[in-house]
Amino acid sequence: MRSFAGRDILSLKDFEHAEFMQVFETAEDLEPIARSRRNGDLLATKTLVTAFYQPSTRTRLAHEAAMHRLGGHVVGFADPKMTRAGDFYQESIKDTVHMLEYYGDAIVMRHFQQGAPAEAARWASVPVINAGDGWGEHPTQVLTDLYTVLKERGTIDGLTFLCIGDMRMRTMHSLGYALTQFDAQAIFVSPPDMSLTAEFKADLASRGLVFREAEHVAEVIGDADVIYMEPVVQADYTQSRVESGGAARPTTPDNYRVTKDLLKRARTDSIILHSLPRMDELPEDVDATRHARYWEEAFNGVVMRMALLALVLGATE
Amino acid sequence: MRSFAGRDILSLKDFEHAEFMQVFETAEDLEPIARSRRNGDLLATKTLVTAFYQPSTRTRLAHEAAMHRLGGHVVGFADPKMTRAGDFYQESIKDTVHMLEYYGDAIVMRHFQQGAPAEAARWASVPVINAGDGWGEHPTQVLTDLYTVLKERGTIDGLTFLCIGDMRMRTMHSLGYALTQFDAQAIFVSPPDMSLTAEFKADLASRGLVFREAEHVAEVIGDADVIYMEPVVQADYTQSRVESGGAARPTTPDNYRVTKDLLKRARTDSIILHSLPRMDELPEDVDATRHARYWEEAFNGVVMRMALLALVLGATE
Amino acid sequence: MRSFAGRDILSLKDFEHAEFMQVFETAEDLEPIARSRRNGDLLATKTLVTAFYQPSTRTRLAHEAAMHRLGGHVVGFADPKMTRAGDFYQESIKDTVHMLEYYGDAIVMRHFQQGAPAEAARWASVPVINAGDGWGEHPTQVLTDLYTVLKERGTIDGLTFLCIGDMRMRTMHSLGYALTQFDAQAIFVSPPDMSLTAEFKADLASRGLVFREAEHVAEVIGDADVIYMEPVVQADYTQSRVESGGAARPTTPDNYRVTKDLLKRARTDSIILHSLPRMDELPEDVDATRHARYWEEAFNGVVMRMALLALVLGATE
Repeated sequence: MRSFAGRDILSLKDFEHAEFMQVFETAEDLEPIARSRRNGDLLATKTLVTAFYQPSTRTRLAHEAAMHRLGGHVVGFADPKMTRAGDFYQESIKDTVHMLEYYGDAIVMRHFQQGAPAEAARWASVPVINAGDGWGEHPTQVLTDLYTVLKERGTIDGLTFLCIGDMRMRTMHSLGYALTQFDAQAIFVSPPDMSLTAEFKADLASRGLVFREAEHVAEVIGDADVIYMEPVVQADYTQSRVESGGAARPTTPDNYRVTKDLLKRARTDSIILHSLPRMDELPEDVDATRHARYWEEAFNGVVMRMALLALVLGATE
Repeated sequence: MRSFAGRDILSLKDFEHAEFMQVFETAEDLEPIARSRRNGDLLATKTLVTAFYQPSTRTRLAHEAAMHRLGGHVVGFADPKMTRAGDFYQESIKDTVHMLEYYGDAIVMRHFQQGAPAEAARWASVPVINAGDGWGEHPTQVLTDLYTVLKERGTIDGLTFLCIGDMRMRTMHSLGYALTQFDAQAIFVSPPDMSLTAEFKADLASRGLVFREAEHVAEVIGDADVIYMEPVVQADYTQSRVESGGAARPTTPDNYRVTKDLLKRARTDSIILHSLPRMDELPEDVDATRHARYWEEAFNGVVMRMALLALVLGATE
Repeated sequence: MRSFAGRDILSLKDFEHAEFMQVFETAEDLEPIARSRRNGDLLATKTLVTAFYQPSTRTRLAHEAAMHRLGGHVVGFADPKMTRAGDFYQESIKDTVHMLEYYGDAIVMRHFQQGAPAEAARWASVPVINAGDGWGEHPTQVLTDLYTVLKERGTIDGLTFLCIGDMRMRTMHSLGYALTQFDAQAIFVSPPDMSLTAEFKADLASRGLVFREAEHVAEVIGDADVIYMEPVVQADYTQSRVESGGAARPTTPDNYRVTKDLLKRARTDSIILHSLPRMDELPEDVDATRHARYWEEAFNGVVMRMALLALVLGATE
């Protein structure tokens, strides 16, 4: 197994089973620091560079909070408009990286363009972490999610993941690749125009993942151990809302919603994950059910980034 | 008296006299650290989360500077547009807090909506500090102001506060409540359409505050020990200026201005406070008079936040 | 020679030869910390205030990274729109500084208005560093550049600097003044409407700088030891691009471009500096030539800010 020190975290396609387990073990080792609410000093001599070319709250702040929890420093930008890199110069990733690599010891990048973090890693002398790249991948989120499953259910093997939402989203890609490394099955439920691409399905099948598709969550919720949700956001709505400054919210079709009522059909030990923010696909009255684990997932988001940063910065052995 | 450790700072309505005094004493204890211009380590193991849904310079930076002065860490956002929380998802305060609470050990929140910090405090497992909520309150600013009065005048009791400006503003609400805990009087001078609401006046009266209203600052400046100013900003001007990108500045009517000339009528030991920024209600030539104390107020803004953060984070006994 | 402790860095017009050398020596002393990729603690008790009224990536982040590399803290703003100082109040520099000076121990300011950092320094009780002021100066960039020349060529004396680009830009002003303190010559190549002003040329001549102007880089590249580049950006293009959200990029006339082909005429030991970002004046295939030193320049940008911050904060003797 490759060492994590100095390594990029770009895709879960690269990850082997033993690597997942090492990441989870490191997270478990560091979790008490997060629970103690006292910053440690494991990364006190390190600086993280954040390069966010798209808005983000959870992913950016979870990385920053993780760095601070380990005593480290953070520099970077949350808004490309406030940088020269994002303005009319349209600076190349290469040029930008040959600046950012001197500002710290690892770079975490979110980019609207698929592949941008991989391009950054090509040039950087420091590790690059992909914090979401266009329709590409979102490996740190899915590592968080699987860690949550492991903590809450004791295992990932043997479980069935019901994935609901827009299957073109990067979390779904990373999750699909990740599940191939476990003895897990997947059921995908999405609007027809947001389904997995034929290419991606062929890739998953060739990697040995057992999965099927369904039209309505009600048909399959009884088979799920993990209910993995993403919003179904109509692109035209998103665009028009941003432009108009606010319009009536559309509603999510029942096919892609998980309600308290529907959860009566769910396995009693099934858990719901949602990376949030949510729209109406996950009503607030579900929060009080035995199934909700998305707050734990939010907490684990910090723990997982602590683990990943400690690993790529070579602070753990 | 309730302990401050783990407590929210949402409103001065809740504050008792002994609590004000404990906050002021803590501020005095920590002030030498601020004066020394050397960061200490009292909060070195703590992270502050800043959640600013409205632009702010002084309030946000004073909290951040205070945290750094005590050796602590800061994460958060200054611009809601750069977060998912502020975009078309219109995430609930509950959901946002169940993320922010894991990123640090206290949350300081400014919000355009009155009551939002209180709603955040309902859900958060860490202390929440209200950094200004709509037309609600601004407790940390008024604690700063009263601490400045105490330092500059030796006491708050026995003083008459002349409050000039828009009485609907949150500082005026917090100040009104605070003065009920001291043997102090108030005189309010504001444009008729910006006067105290009947409801708030009744509330102050029922709490025992002695106050009166006047039409022109010239009538009452001779009675004041503390001249407490806020700008009188015509809402339509503010709006149109933002939209038009700049128009001629309106002038503040003399009724609500404090000039060098007018200060000849003031008590020699009266002091002027202004949380800044200012418009023409407080001309620059007043800065050199014996009355100006707003730079001290700015310095105390850091000291007070050091005290509040140390208290709610349980770092002082 | 004046001590650097507590001193402002506003202009290189003020700098004497011995002061340049002291800055360079301090940079050399601190460079190993930057190379070690381990933050030290020289400035652990200090906070830097960043006040950027114009977008910046490299200059802002290099200062922040430098502060973190020396264990220090940073507060401030990168976007004036997110501050009250930048909104309709149009707060004076004086008022803003009488807030910022309490938030940290040095202020680094970029401003669209020439002279703003000098005005800030007039009022501040802490050192002010000019990070670029309108068409004024950019001293920290040029100190970075000259340090790079010293490291890469072993000396500044005896060298000819070929300066290409918009001569009205602040780096060109700072460079012109700096070269008067060395036994160096300059050749300026710029579009006619972007040439040095008669006033500035007279000033340089009176200070003893030997310089000439040329129309095409090809005429003079063979005489250069240091090829110092800035983009030639048509102001109307910049404006229209920002407004239109993207238009076809203009191309830079060959007179002001340095290509791999043209470099065949260059001295073999000549080096190219460019503060980046670049447009088409410096094609990417030049990066692999023996002349390129702009990545080293980027690295030195952090080292130089470490030196300047350590000096003005009195952390070096």
